[in-house]
Amino acid sequence: MNSFGRIFRVSIFGESHGNCVGVMIDGCPPGIPIKLLDFMKDIQRRKPGAVGTTKRKEKDFPVFESGIFNNHTTGTPIVIRFENTDIESKEYQKYVDLPRPGHADYTSRIKYNGFNDYRGSGHHSGRITIGLVAAGVIAKKIIAPMKVNSKVIEVGGSKKIKEKVYEIATKQDSVGGLIECIVENVPAGLGEPFFDSIESLLSHIVFSIPAIKGIEFGAGFRASMMKGSEFNDVIIDEEGKTATNNSGGINGGISNGNPIVFRVAVKPPSSISLEQKTFNFKKKKIDSLLIKGRHDACIALRMPVIVEAATAIVLADLKLINKINSI
Amino acid sequence: MNSFGRIFRVSIFGESHGNCVGVMIDGCPPGIPIKLLDFMKDIQRRKPGAVGTTKRKEKDFPVFESGIFNNHTTGTPIVIRFENTDIESKEYQKYVDLPRPGHADYTSRIKYNGFNDYRGSGHHSGRITIGLVAAGVIAKKIIAPMKVNSKVIEVGGSKKIKEKVYEIATKQDSVGGLIECIVENVPAGLGEPFFDSIESLLSHIVFSIPAIKGIEFGAGFRASMMKGSEFNDVIIDEEGKTATNNSGGINGGISNGNPIVFRVAVKPPSSISLEQKTFNFKKKKIDSLLIKGRHDACIALRMPVIVEAATAIVLADLKLINKINSI
Amino acid sequence: MNSFGRIFRVSIFGESHGNCVGVMIDGCPPGIPIKLLDFMKDIQRRKPGAVGTTKRKEKDFPVFESGIFNNHTTGTPIVIRFENTDIESKEYQKYVDLPRPGHADYTSRIKYNGFNDYRGSGHHSGRITIGLVAAGVIAKKIIAPMKVNSKVIEVGGSKKIKEKVYEIATKQDSVGGLIECIVENVPAGLGEPFFDSIESLLSHIVFSIPAIKGIEFGAGFRASMMKGSEFNDVIIDEEGKTATNNSGGINGGISNGNPIVFRVAVKPPSSISLEQKTFNFKKKKIDSLLIKGRHDACIALRMPVIVEAATAIVLADLKLINKINSI
Amino acid sequence: MNSFGRIFRVSIFGESHGNCVGVMIDGCPPGIPIKLLDFMKDIQRRKPGAVGTTKRKEKDFPVFESGIFNNHTTGTPIVIRFENTDIESKEYQKYVDLPRPGHADYTSRIKYNGFNDYRGSGHHSGRITIGLVAAGVIAKKIIAPMKVNSKVIEVGGSKKIKEKVYEIATKQDSVGGLIECIVENVPAGLGEPFFDSIESLLSHIVFSIPAIKGIEFGAGFRASMMKGSEFNDVIIDEEGKTATNNSGGINGGISNGNPIVFRVAVKPPSSISLEQKTFNFKKKKIDSLLIKGRHDACIALRMPVIVEAATAIVLADLKLINKINSI
Repeated sequence: MNSFGRIFRVSIFGESHGNCVGVMIDGCPPGIPIKLLDFMKDIQRRKPGAVGTTKRKEKDFPVFESGIFNNHTTGTPIVIRFENTDIESKEYQKYVDLPRPGHADYTSRIKYNGFNDYRGSGHHSGRITIGLVAAGVIAKKIIAPMKVNSKVIEVGGSKKIKEKVYEIATKQDSVGGLIECIVENVPAGLGEPFFDSIESLLSHIVFSIPAIKGIEFGAGFRASMMKGSEFNDVIIDEEGKTATNNSGGINGGISNGNPIVFRVAVKPPSSISLEQKTFNFKKKKIDSLLIKGRHDACIALRMPVIVEAATAIVLADLKLINKINSI
Repeated sequence: MNSFGRIFRVSIFGESHGNCVGVMIDGCPPGIPIKLLDFMKDIQRRKPGAVGTTKRKEKDFPVFESGIFNNHTTGTPIVIRFENTDIESKEYQKYVDLPRPGHADYTSRIKYNGFNDYRGSGHHSGRITIGLVAAGVIAKKIIAPMKVNSKVIEVGGSKKIKEKVYEIATKQDSVGGLIECIVENVPAGLGEPFFDSIESLLSHIVFSIPAIKGIEFGAGFRASMMKGSEFNDVIIDEEGKTATNNSGGINGGISNGNPIVFRVAVKPPSSISLEQKTFNFKKKKIDSLLIKGRHDACIALRMPVIVEAATAIVLADLKLINKINSI
Repeated sequence: MNSFGRIFRVSIFGESHGNCVGVMIDGCPPGIPIKLLDFMKDIQRRKPGAVGTTKRKEKDFPVFESGIFNNHTTGTPIVIRFENTDIESKEYQKYVDLPRPGHADYTSRIKYNGFNDYRGSGHHSGRITIGLVAAGVIAKKIIAPMKVNSKVIEVGGSKKIKEKVYEIATKQDSVGGLIECIVENVPAGLGEPFFDSIESLLSHIVFSIPAIKGIEFGAGFRASMMKGSEFNDVIIDEEGKTATNNSGGINGGISNGNPIVFRVAVKPPSSISLEQKTFNFKKKKIDSLLIKGRHDACIALRMPVIVEAATAIVLADLKLINKINSI
Repeated sequence: MNSFGRIFRVSIFGESHGNCVGVMIDGCPPGIPIKLLDFMKDIQRRKPGAVGTTKRKEKDFPVFESGIFNNHTTGTPIVIRFENTDIESKEYQKYVDLPRPGHADYTSRIKYNGFNDYRGSGHHSGRITIGLVAAGVIAKKIIAPMKVNSKVIEVGGSKKIKEKVYEIATKQDSVGGLIECIVENVPAGLGEPFFDSIESLLSHIVFSIPAIKGIEFGAGFRASMMKGSEFNDVIIDEEGKTATNNSGGINGGISNGNPIVFRVAVKPPSSISLEQKTFNFKKKKIDSLLIKGRHDACIALRMPVIVEAATAIVLADLKLINKINSI
């Protein structure tokens, strides 16, 4: 199902080389002030431009199609639409028979019985995440004074991010990265005990972002090596503040008032300019593949704002849900 | 919300020291053969008993309350119920004012305005996962010939699992662990592009299991250090088989026919017999806490069967959903 | 799917001649006082006993299995269970081949590929509605000061209800009836413009109650014969009070502050003691059928409390949802 | 929530005088052939033009924004968009203080704290139903060989439809009507026992269509006056065919293979050119109101195609759901 959220419910649509991409938001409260400028800042952060990012140039101008009136949300469904303009589709038909390693070319063909829009990876394109960013702009307004901050902390195992990306891009290769996200001013009591634990909801939406292969909260994987006497965060004041934050601000699925902290592992982009091998489904044999076109050498660079948006969407939903914790 | 799944929909209920715990399953197809013995094997695997596990002894006998007739599922809602019998609640009231570090004592009180059942952690108890295991037994039948296998691969950073647990248990401390889960015979085409990617759904349900702090698929966190030329899995045959499996059997959120592989990090149990510090909400100061009672020194030991069940629940849902991929 | 509601979410389970029937409620706010006596009154109203009602005697004693602690809701899933005790199943196997006209014998067999529990109509039994009544008891507490009242206003086209039922019962036949439901003290602003209009939600749950074949709001079917100048309800004060109530308290799917008024048509019970014809699926020919057992001559008599419960469940959900109409 | 359906899930968006109106469809199987002409026929049926219908002229040209590629559905979210072009908004601001009787002016203002788009009734406009019609076109392809037919059978209590509408329109008044809908070639076994009974789902979506105040299935309200010996439909062959169809093709919530038959009561349009009374919220007193603009004298005339679409949407969902009735 292509929707996420229980109250603040987000659906994204569109294809990389179709008319447009966009987002529908259902369940947004009325009266939230909406300005175009609010969107431009986050959309700009997602855009390519730096070393190691794709050459595709989209204006990414948000058109408010519904649910916004007199610069405020109305409470009815919001649709925001982004036209696609800079499209080069001719390369992609060949990947139907010659699926690119690491891409969804093969899985999408199987899943949709060959009816998938394969141009620019169609609905599988990272371009679709612009809808998440737009929804995130509104979500961030809902969750204030909570504040989400996300950044790249490593690329290819190196903390020298620019240098590493430059080195890899020069070699026509690509590289993975590590992103950290911290939410400040989180009230205690958000989340549910089991299926809608904060970790469950955050990981659900974060793994919707293409290229993410791991997530960990607080001490994360390090927790598997720790003793209880080391891991346990001692509560030190009446607000629930803890001396350490190994739990990443979450106990029993519910926020404890300390910052929510998590990290995500981003894989290297699948499209590289180096020659690769893949199976040729027409010739029924392993074949060589050279991917032309416009790629990111390190997609992690463009992702912090998407991770922030995803996080804000979850927290907006949980904040709204908590309003019904009494009659 | 305390339900998970779109078609094969699982809800768990109960409290650690209430009448019972159990599971409701909605959307299970009719005609699946159900035998009591099928359940006993997996329930047994979840039981304590080994070194480092709790002394609480529950019969864990599943009572089929509805949805099962003549040893087959009927297609209407299934309820399976487990009575609670071995209950010692007297210790728990003190944790209302003196919340145990790492536990949900504090967050649950805030979340539910003090109306939470605090006895044995109430609905936050790991005991509630028995419902997942029961649902998993049925899910495993639905997903055949897919086969889920999960095991502990490390405890406290050590591959010598028994020895490490014994060492820690002796010190009255607790320890975390690492679990790996592998699904064989997965057909290509399961999962959805964004919000219901396999990674999204698996991480969602896996983080519902108490004590899990991280999850990674395929190369996982290692992917953040890799180059595209290393990471990309080369497709080598018409079935989509790949030479490596860095993607963990998933591309673009959709299964590619290779084994699904993931690992989860389990934190050390919060209850330890060593003296700890915590905030005393009555006295309004930091205080000492000694937790009596029956605890697991390494809860990871009892979790592989729960992780398997969770995985089977997701795959059952995805398998059923894929039946509607044509008119 | 066997659940209803977006926030206050009700699932019912069980079979007429299985272990039990019951209800799960997810999303109920914590802190609602719960007393056994609250339940007994409404359960009593649903019980048979009057002329023209079945001889089956069930204690209908509610067991609180989870989600209730210290006589209050905890905020976690509530399960309430009713044991089945007065069961006579031997008659029912013959209806597998000789489906009773008007019953679900045939449709249930087809739907569930023959795996349905056919004893006492299994999960199709009106007995399952006791779970609705139990959920309604809690919902009524949530919606206060809104007050739901429902009663039988006609039986067999006659306003002399007792006399008509007696006459029909004497003839070993059954008879339909008309129920009216009025909700007082409704605040304006409940409901959504389209899919979750109040009429949509109320009709959805009301048609879940077996034997209902029609529903109308306000002027209802009479509206189809009216002119706009007659139908339009003139607003006469600042609270939105209207001079007439042809709209049944709802405009554009949303409550307008006047009483919500609707009527439902209940068909005559399908089981009658008179000989009937049906198709014999074993002999492959039309055959005679004599239904023995314990039946209601006018099920409408037992239904007002069920209609009230269903209405309260919808309004509880809408009241909770409206709490998120601002940040 | 502004979505309907479990698998074939429809969301509608837009405002009467905003940029556009449209529909998103999630869960549509891939490979369904889509031609523009398929849409034009049903859209044409919804258009005004006959005596007694509004003068607003919209091209109603469907733009396929996503989910359709090479004239087939792709299996990913479909968005279809209709631009608004013929807009006259200036009249509407006055209805904020002077709410039109029968309209949602008052309820929408309360519901959305005054942030609603009041121009042309905003999201409450009947114009939004064009999205239902578009979704219905696709749904009708999914449900073949099932065939839905709907028509006006009475207007103002009269079977002489044109004459009655002409008479009422001449008097500057409006009038209600009665619509019948019949579905042929329905397989037995669609629907669920309780909350997702066919009656529940059909009534839910049908009451989403503005102006409908009643629905009845089969004998409907007449059933409340009948005896069981009259009402019961005798099964006469192995396909489940019945001699009569008082149940409207549905037993126990599930289709029995006979035609599904229901009728809906449509109220007279609220906007009439005659002077009316309403409360003036600025002057705090009852005042006169004269509604200018372009109205339908009998909206029932334009609704059969919308009722058909709504019905097809429900049946498409149920048909797809039934594909998972076995492993």
